[in-house]
Amino acid sequence: MSRAWNFSAGPAALPEAVLKRAQAELLDWNGSGASVMELSHRGKPFMALAAAAEQRLRGLMGIPANYKVLFLQGGATQHFAQIPMNLAGPDAHADYIVTGHWGEKAVREAAPYIDARVAATSVAANYLSLPPRDTWQLSKGAAYVHYTPNETIHGVEFHDVPDVGDTPLVADMSSNILSEPVDVSRFGLIYAGAQKNIGPSGLVIMVIRDDLLARAGRPMANIFRYAEHAANDSMLNTPNTWGWYLAGLTFEWLEEQGGLAGMGERNAAKATALYDAIDGSSGFYRSPVEVSARSRMNVPFTLHDSALDAVFLKESEAAGLLALKGHKAVGGMRASLYNAVSLEAVGVLVNFMRDFATRHG
Amino acid sequence: MSRAWNFSAGPAALPEAVLKRAQAELLDWNGSGASVMELSHRGKPFMALAAAAEQRLRGLMGIPANYKVLFLQGGATQHFAQIPMNLAGPDAHADYIVTGHWGEKAVREAAPYIDARVAATSVAANYLSLPPRDTWQLSKGAAYVHYTPNETIHGVEFHDVPDVGDTPLVADMSSNILSEPVDVSRFGLIYAGAQKNIGPSGLVIMVIRDDLLARAGRPMANIFRYAEHAANDSMLNTPNTWGWYLAGLTFEWLEEQGGLAGMGERNAAKATALYDAIDGSSGFYRSPVEVSARSRMNVPFTLHDSALDAVFLKESEAAGLLALKGHKAVGGMRASLYNAVSLEAVGVLVNFMRDFATRHG
Repeated sequence: MSRAWNFSAGPAALPEAVLKRAQAELLDWNGSGASVMELSHRGKPFMALAAAAEQRLRGLMGIPANYKVLFLQGGATQHFAQIPMNLAGPDAHADYIVTGHWGEKAVREAAPYIDARVAATSVAANYLSLPPRDTWQLSKGAAYVHYTPNETIHGVEFHDVPDVGDTPLVADMSSNILSEPVDVSRFGLIYAGAQKNIGPSGLVIMVIRDDLLARAGRPMANIFRYAEHAANDSMLNTPNTWGWYLAGLTFEWLEEQGGLAGMGERNAAKATALYDAIDGSSGFYRSPVEVSARSRMNVPFTLHDSALDAVFLKESEAAGLLALKGHKAVGGMRASLYNAVSLEAVGVLVNFMRDFATRHG
Repeated sequence: MSRAWNFSAGPAALPEAVLKRAQAELLDWNGSGASVMELSHRGKPFMALAAAAEQRLRGLMGIPANYKVLFLQGGATQHFAQIPMNLAGPDAHADYIVTGHWGEKAVREAAPYIDARVAATSVAANYLSLPPRDTWQLSKGAAYVHYTPNETIHGVEFHDVPDVGDTPLVADMSSNILSEPVDVSRFGLIYAGAQKNIGPSGLVIMVIRDDLLARAGRPMANIFRYAEHAANDSMLNTPNTWGWYLAGLTFEWLEEQGGLAGMGERNAAKATALYDAIDGSSGFYRSPVEVSARSRMNVPFTLHDSALDAVFLKESEAAGLLALKGHKAVGGMRASLYNAVSLEAVGVLVNFMRDFATRHG
């Protein structure tokens, strides 16, 4: 078949231009006579690729000079554990703001390494809203405050960066990194699994303020130390070279799209189009999330009659609309609108939804 | 340029047939309308791909039913640390057989988690031979014995599996996995970074006897527990889906090559051709490694006059022979002859070497 309209929550759609370029040079990258996957990460050609990708990311996000950029592995989940290992000693505590599944998991994986305190949670609201800032019980001397700016499953997103004073703010931006301009200086550490807005799975991008690199005091293997990765330009061991390469191509594509300002506008327009279709459906579709906390990236929605769910999925798939089934924890549908999902794709989805509502309403 | 003859030590050559297939279906895998990189790892199509890849590997290696196969991340280096975490409590000890750079590193990364004892080492021989079996000082009650069947940098290889009694034998097979038939039942745990004989970097394959999964007694995050990965079919979190896919294609290609028996014959023929050229060069080329310990996968060699090194590298590259420069720890040249390096490629190399010796002898 031709290319589908892909609304997968992750691994997710990649820019078609990036895929086409990767395809064209798959057997012969950069005139080397080899695939980029077949070259040493320590050779000059790959080192240049790697450095250029970092520079593009620095430009896109406006990363200050006192932050390191790391290209790591293990998914965000591994870093749920590695962050407390690196940012505090075993007797320290940290505050977690839990606004969904991934925040819960971050606490659970951190617990063996730090006293991970839930300073705020919206679990009582079924994660359909954000806990008001004035209810957060931030603790004295916390090593950091961790939060999840966008929750992929529940579809709730912070629309500004919370003020937590001088405590380093740590953000799992897996599902909204690069989706709009960001003031990196507000954060101590930003990290993201690549498989939503950056590239393929198996790559984690981390942006870390360099003073935090010195905090890792407890015994651990070098491979777990961010400072070691930083000192070795993320080549402490063999990195995911294919992921790094594709990330670089995606960063280049983002520049061509007008950078994060351009993407931010486009993402706002995409989200508005879909939420308008839901809100304007006279109740045929419903967004369960509180309006002020709605995610621009992941839009869960339900049908007024869940008996229609299977029909909706079958017909949407036949229409070339992929991966609209909601996460089992939430049910219903979910459309993920990451950077590589075009406004055109959202238009096709919205038209399908209107037509479906007319036929089944 | 056209495809080069690639002798990279890793990331290394992949089978051209695998690359061509990946290229053909890069934008539309399996009729899905999406790249395999753009699909959820939890969707039926990818789950089927994942299971099929595991089954192929089980068939190729003859993996007994009481072993789990895991598709992990982090490179072999991360598992240098994770293996002691998982295979023993903090008060345990383990024996390490050190025959080169990677064995040394395995000890260093394990040290924070276990009393890692060097039971044998060939460091005094500059890692140019293997320590005789009767000199190994295996300790009582060791949690496991770790060794490196093939040392990529020094080019030394075990040509049989050492007998260590009932202690589980752990093997870092990063640079010789799938290169010849193997009796998996002799091992407690086999692991390998993919980027030499399997696929792209960023993927680790592990074969672990299931009774060992229960050993992880110390506190640690779930993401570090092999038992959790096993219980979740290596989808505890998002795996490296592209790596898994390419590994599956490589396994299929290996089947077409006659499986590990076929590859073993071919690899022996390749190594013989190169060592014969070195040994028959009247001293123009020299293999520093003791004959009985010579690696079939990584062949370091020196030129009789190191002043010719730069000329050799320049001319070989011009002749389309890539990545022959030796590791800085050893110097000289190194040709890596992994599965995807054809007998034809070795023939081209050998002819070049003879011609070079004639011109510069």
